[in-house]
Amino acid sequence: MTGTELRTEFDRALALVDRGPDVAVAELSADWRFGAVVHGGLQLALAAAALGRRIRAAGRPGDPQSISAYYLSGAVPGPAELRTDVARLGRTLSTGAVSLSQVVDDAPVERMRALATVTDLARLDPDVRLQAGPPDMPPPEDCVPCPITVEGTTVWERVEIRLDPAAAGWVRDEPTGEAHQRGWARLADGREPDALALLVVCDAVPATVTALGLRGHVPTLELTAHVRGVPAPGWLRFTQTTRNFAAGMIEEDAEIWDSAGRMVLQSRQLARAPRA
Amino acid sequence: MTGTELRTEFDRALALVDRGPDVAVAELSADWRFGAVVHGGLQLALAAAALGRRIRAAGRPGDPQSISAYYLSGAVPGPAELRTDVARLGRTLSTGAVSLSQVVDDAPVERMRALATVTDLARLDPDVRLQAGPPDMPPPEDCVPCPITVEGTTVWERVEIRLDPAAAGWVRDEPTGEAHQRGWARLADGREPDALALLVVCDAVPATVTALGLRGHVPTLELTAHVRGVPAPGWLRFTQTTRNFAAGMIEEDAEIWDSAGRMVLQSRQLARAPRA
Repeated sequence: MTGTELRTEFDRALALVDRGPDVAVAELSADWRFGAVVHGGLQLALAAAALGRRIRAAGRPGDPQSISAYYLSGAVPGPAELRTDVARLGRTLSTGAVSLSQVVDDAPVERMRALATVTDLARLDPDVRLQAGPPDMPPPEDCVPCPITVEGTTVWERVEIRLDPAAAGWVRDEPTGEAHQRGWARLADGREPDALALLVVCDAVPATVTALGLRGHVPTLELTAHVRGVPAPGWLRFTQTTRNFAAGMIEEDAEIWDSAGRMVLQSRQLARAPRA
Repeated sequence: MTGTELRTEFDRALALVDRGPDVAVAELSADWRFGAVVHGGLQLALAAAALGRRIRAAGRPGDPQSISAYYLSGAVPGPAELRTDVARLGRTLSTGAVSLSQVVDDAPVERMRALATVTDLARLDPDVRLQAGPPDMPPPEDCVPCPITVEGTTVWERVEIRLDPAAAGWVRDEPTGEAHQRGWARLADGREPDALALLVVCDAVPATVTALGLRGHVPTLELTAHVRGVPAPGWLRFTQTTRNFAAGMIEEDAEIWDSAGRMVLQSRQLARAPRA
């Protein structure tokens, strides 16, 4: 990582300091909060960065291809330890586990456990045989900013979200009744997107239940993201949709397209819905 | 597990013998193969069973709610060791890792690493606020059996699949051109479905690329399944759809409904597509 890259707030948020071959330390900033807790997407990107760094140190490519995170307890601003465990080191694909923990009352408390596969995204075949197209929406300047729905949230100052007014009736207290969000996203500091930024954005999209008129926390139990391409510079377009809201749980499927119209990420999370 | 339950071939395939508090051994049967390798869905169910057993031994509920598996090398018929690592033991939700390995040339080789959250599915709120409905299809007797597309495959003798003829043109060498499969599924031995059976079925559904006319292995890199309800007895209905086929990779989204029309599982896998 060069000094130039570290000048962006996103790269500073992902900065890791080695404490050994399999242990690195990060500083979780209060600037990346959803409510009182540190944003799950930032933790996801940190886990991917920690494993990628570990695999690159072994001479193999370390870009995130797939990552699955299980959230165990709410992370708070302050130092965090990321411990990696390489399960398979391959020429093109490597897989490992990452545990993110924080010290509470002198004891480590695990916040998140992840499994991830890393690869060389730049060497992926550019061929697209089939993909669902990006949503048809007004340009970002005709879309609406995402209002803060949970007090204390700072992540939407780091990730700029513009919602398609046609799907964002909830912003005007006129919910559409459809568990669907769509809009534009970019890092607020102007840094262009990469695979790690996609991991943050996929979880920074507003919850689908908000579009149904529900407010409150939507804590993630599990989130899996697949990076399907390296994003071109510029605004990202996203959709987020829920097909099943049952037993108090929802899945949220996010899809992200880059400025060239290529689908670059698909993610799904299982989350607890707020009580109606 | 009672003697009655063990009389079904599915329960025999999932039988675990403890080798310590965190280690159990299973016998991977050649009867559950896709091609030369042991079916990924069976490995998924075994991992969920191993973690559930470990968590129940600690006095907490152990039904699978969410599981994410990363496949590292092809499992072969024979003994396998399942090693569990509990990350969080909770009153209603517990989370842990499972590693499935086999001994090759006197050394352990990891086949799969999984993370999973377990709960008490019987105590889930039965309320369904929103769900996509099951596909409209002819009854199972008017659907077509799934042909063996890869030699050596035995899993379709254990999981009976009946495909909607309208979506299964590929069976008649008339591919529809849509990356979509739908049909009915049940355990061939007559055992009624439960959460573990759903985990097998979601990966026993034929690959979407087969519907495009492609043949060959579709090796799974990652598969996450969310169990959304306890299935009612009877035939299961499934759909499997791909939205993005790019850079030689596909995602396959499976959804399963029980005989009462309730969506009981959603899964997604990232897999390598066969070369055209």
